[in-house]
Amino acid sequence: MHVLITGAAGFLGQRLTGALLERGQVDGKALTRLTLVDQIEPVAPPHDTIRLDCRAMDITRPGALDSLLGERPEVIYHLAAVVSAAAEAELDLGMTVNFEATRALLEGCRAAGLAETRLIMASSVAVYGGELPDTLDDMTALTPQSSYGTQKAMCELLINDYSRRGLIDGCVLRLPTIVVRPGRPNAAASSFASSILREPLGGETALCPVPTDLELFVMSPGRVVDALLHAATLPSDALVPYRSIMLPGLTVSVAAMLEVLRDIGGEEALARVQHAPEPRIEAIVASWPARFETRRAERLGFVADRDFHEIVRTFVAERQAAR
Amino acid sequence: MHVLITGAAGFLGQRLTGALLERGQVDGKALTRLTLVDQIEPVAPPHDTIRLDCRAMDITRPGALDSLLGERPEVIYHLAAVVSAAAEAELDLGMTVNFEATRALLEGCRAAGLAETRLIMASSVAVYGGELPDTLDDMTALTPQSSYGTQKAMCELLINDYSRRGLIDGCVLRLPTIVVRPGRPNAAASSFASSILREPLGGETALCPVPTDLELFVMSPGRVVDALLHAATLPSDALVPYRSIMLPGLTVSVAAMLEVLRDIGGEEALARVQHAPEPRIEAIVASWPARFETRRAERLGFVADRDFHEIVRTFVAERQAAR
Repeated sequence: MHVLITGAAGFLGQRLTGALLERGQVDGKALTRLTLVDQIEPVAPPHDTIRLDCRAMDITRPGALDSLLGERPEVIYHLAAVVSAAAEAELDLGMTVNFEATRALLEGCRAAGLAETRLIMASSVAVYGGELPDTLDDMTALTPQSSYGTQKAMCELLINDYSRRGLIDGCVLRLPTIVVRPGRPNAAASSFASSILREPLGGETALCPVPTDLELFVMSPGRVVDALLHAATLPSDALVPYRSIMLPGLTVSVAAMLEVLRDIGGEEALARVQHAPEPRIEAIVASWPARFETRRAERLGFVADRDFHEIVRTFVAERQAAR
Repeated sequence: MHVLITGAAGFLGQRLTGALLERGQVDGKALTRLTLVDQIEPVAPPHDTIRLDCRAMDITRPGALDSLLGERPEVIYHLAAVVSAAAEAELDLGMTVNFEATRALLEGCRAAGLAETRLIMASSVAVYGGELPDTLDDMTALTPQSSYGTQKAMCELLINDYSRRGLIDGCVLRLPTIVVRPGRPNAAASSFASSILREPLGGETALCPVPTDLELFVMSPGRVVDALLHAATLPSDALVPYRSIMLPGLTVSVAAMLEVLRDIGGEEALARVQHAPEPRIEAIVASWPARFETRRAERLGFVADRDFHEIVRTFVAERQAAR
């Protein structure tokens, strides 16, 4: 089994790579080859039985992926993307990376005849927006209020059409906001959702740019990686007639997140969160819905985190283990 | 007021041109200039006070529309498209004409600084499909089951994002199936819906490729043109936060259409309809929903046909007047 990951040097790509190398199989078939692609060369530990190919590559360059697709990967994880705040700041950059590169990937798969290849793209809760019902479900319209959400929604349509035409075997996972991300804050509008836990638990201050009654729909990095792995095992039939799936997250307010921070890190951790409203960030994040019925995902075997305490406890345990 | 129409030589474009020339104004402002663009040079009667510009042009050629957009039209009707069956037969053709040309038009508007220009695109009931509820509404997800529907849905997303960013003042009308079209059958999967009335009423035979219990959501050409004209008059505020509007059609079964044919044309007209199942056509048309709640359109002042008899009687009267 040959797996290709774009955006492999990113946070999710790295976790997915680690999980694939650890499991050594996909859908019961031995993983023999793993191709990792990103703007900077992805790093992965050498492995006895799995051939690793790490490539620095600009996937927005025409034909960039063609030779790799010619090697006929059986599963492709397409994680490469420009984050929400960056796509909002620069329309052309977002269109090129988020949309055009995805279209080029689909065309490359078509040219290489990868009809049987499972192509899994990470989409986002940002495809929703505007005047939404209180609780969304699998048939709620995508009316995004950000360029990032627009570009992801366009890619979803294209992956569905290419799959329907039998040119690829696609599957789109709409990711909830991932909390708690390790590392440093980034340009994603949702970056604060991890910062307000990660930094205080590490003894640093963090800025909270949104009101505490704002709700988010969240999933832990571990559960997201589980979902990405699970998506490679679903039979094509189960994905018809539409291959975009909102993953089951947890609905949690910023206030509730801060309560869990206090429970686990104490009053001193909570005191490290400074409230500094940023209307630009709030406008983007508040347009993302936080309440979903995700029946389809659950029927397909995707699993949510148990509760927010577990998410934060797992983060703390992983950080200690990594030291 | 300067109005630009793409696809102006097509059936809808011609009717819209006629209506604009007859009314001589848009939203209370005198029409002074009308630019008509199509692959073949559109034809329109000369007018005393309205400057007419008829251009044969391939709008898929990069920059094709740029000089026309530099003339700063205040309303653009974007009707140019490859029809559903053709887009299904040739993915690349559909992507180029239906999607890329629309994107190029948006980029041209952005480059020319046409933030105030009302861009009205014709979309379609074909953006819907798959496992749909019995009755759709303004928040039903777009899960198209055709490449035509996919391409139109992608254009909708892009027009909404460009409008939200203040680069254009867009409005998308999702057209019901237009019945009764004049002229001859074309490559649209819905072509039969007009044929089974038009040909028998003109003394010719027609083929019905779908079961008679199949329902369609239909609108007459006159009402569609009324809707296109009305869309130019809506204030931008009324279109926020999402600028795609399903027009109010009538739900009618093929059997009911044939009953009206008999009422108006008699048994001899009905006998001219031959039933010749075409699974390829049925598969496309049956994926389009036929029952809608179109509250948003009605609130915005769009009006449905009164009943199917009226649609057919109007067609007969117009055909006689044209002789």
